[in-house]
Amino acid sequence: MCVPEEQSEKLPGGRLKKAIVLTSGGLDSATCIALAKSQGYALYALSFDYGQKNKAELQAAEKIAAVNAAVSHEIIDIRSLGRIASSALIDSKIDVPDYTGKIEVPVTYVPARNTIFLSIALAYAEVREAAAIFIGCNNADYTGYPDCRAEYLEAFQAMANLALKPVREGRGIVIHAPLVNLSKREIIELGTGLNVDYSFTVSCYRCDEKGRACGNCDACTYRREGFAKAEIVDPTRYIFLKH
Amino acid sequence: MCVPEEQSEKLPGGRLKKAIVLTSGGLDSATCIALAKSQGYALYALSFDYGQKNKAELQAAEKIAAVNAAVSHEIIDIRSLGRIASSALIDSKIDVPDYTGKIEVPVTYVPARNTIFLSIALAYAEVREAAAIFIGCNNADYTGYPDCRAEYLEAFQAMANLALKPVREGRGIVIHAPLVNLSKREIIELGTGLNVDYSFTVSCYRCDEKGRACGNCDACTYRREGFAKAEIVDPTRYIFLKH
Repeated sequence: MCVPEEQSEKLPGGRLKKAIVLTSGGLDSATCIALAKSQGYALYALSFDYGQKNKAELQAAEKIAAVNAAVSHEIIDIRSLGRIASSALIDSKIDVPDYTGKIEVPVTYVPARNTIFLSIALAYAEVREAAAIFIGCNNADYTGYPDCRAEYLEAFQAMANLALKPVREGRGIVIHAPLVNLSKREIIELGTGLNVDYSFTVSCYRCDEKGRACGNCDACTYRREGFAKAEIVDPTRYIFLKH
Repeated sequence: MCVPEEQSEKLPGGRLKKAIVLTSGGLDSATCIALAKSQGYALYALSFDYGQKNKAELQAAEKIAAVNAAVSHEIIDIRSLGRIASSALIDSKIDVPDYTGKIEVPVTYVPARNTIFLSIALAYAEVREAAAIFIGCNNADYTGYPDCRAEYLEAFQAMANLALKPVREGRGIVIHAPLVNLSKREIIELGTGLNVDYSFTVSCYRCDEKGRACGNCDACTYRREGFAKAEIVDPTRYIFLKH
């Protein structure tokens, strides 16, 4: 990937203003990385292969990193975790259900997922001397995920402030979750203002190999509602899977 | 490995009292797992292949899990992290130095290591419905590692209390670091009282393929001093590597 480090802003003292950006390939992370770019950060995109069924997600992440001219895009292989964890997102024996509207922890929940992702991002931020980590998690629609809430992220920040060498040396790493309290509509409006092309982002938990969305799972339902409420044309390729 | 779950204690309601135990293969984790066993936990040993030079460490972890009749021993492959992190413990281009006596963050420091290990242990604890995670980290000798301090562990616990589904459902996971403020001497005395056989544990950062210790690195120096101060015969096989 091209390395346009020169275009990014410098910190006092001449250090590059770098951010590690967790990039899943979905609508939220596409918005988040565009926001980080608009704030002058040199972008280091970070994705995870945790054995998710949905490989189109990682291909979308690759495109999102390229479109935003990220300095690099790393995909970390943590498939070995599949041996000790389980979720409808990684376990072929559990089906992802249709949207039900219930407020509960969904079967698509992966135990400690954001904690593991953010921990690895911390290591990467320290090595790259990045001052920021961006995560596009969002709590407004999905109240079921415990690790998408502001109070969780604040506790992670407090822990991170004690965990690392740079912090002890007076340089902190700040975790930014700019979408955490936005609705899907507000995220789409924000991204559209930043010229995000949502056509190749993948939110669906059971999309096909080409990244076409089922239209009926939780993620599809919130995404469709978001575009409808924002009165913005939804570019998602839906197949409206029937069960 | 044998599964002596029946020998372990039950919680009120009949649930098995389970603990995830981070098992590195060193003196500290050998003591920690023996302590967890003495407290009646069914043990789920968890190790990581993070590309450490020292493979004898993982072989020692396997033996330690077996000796303590762990229900299982999982080694999680996170070698992919080597692409984004660096340390004398995993990078063949950085030499592990002799002991110097300086109080500083050593080159053997791996960025966010305990944070990554504990995060994965959290996921495992949730899936196994374990009420406890044991980590044998210890701060008394190695003041250089930020993620071996009690205040760091307390912050991690606070974050964990918000991160998981079981916690929201009223079941907590408690992180136990029983050695955190003990000296190496006190750890050796504790383990000896629990009949820990230290002969096959590996603390050395540059041991040979058979697990024989260099005798001169930080880890060897603290270990040797610990046995000497405890007036217990040191069973470590040293080769006293010269540079």
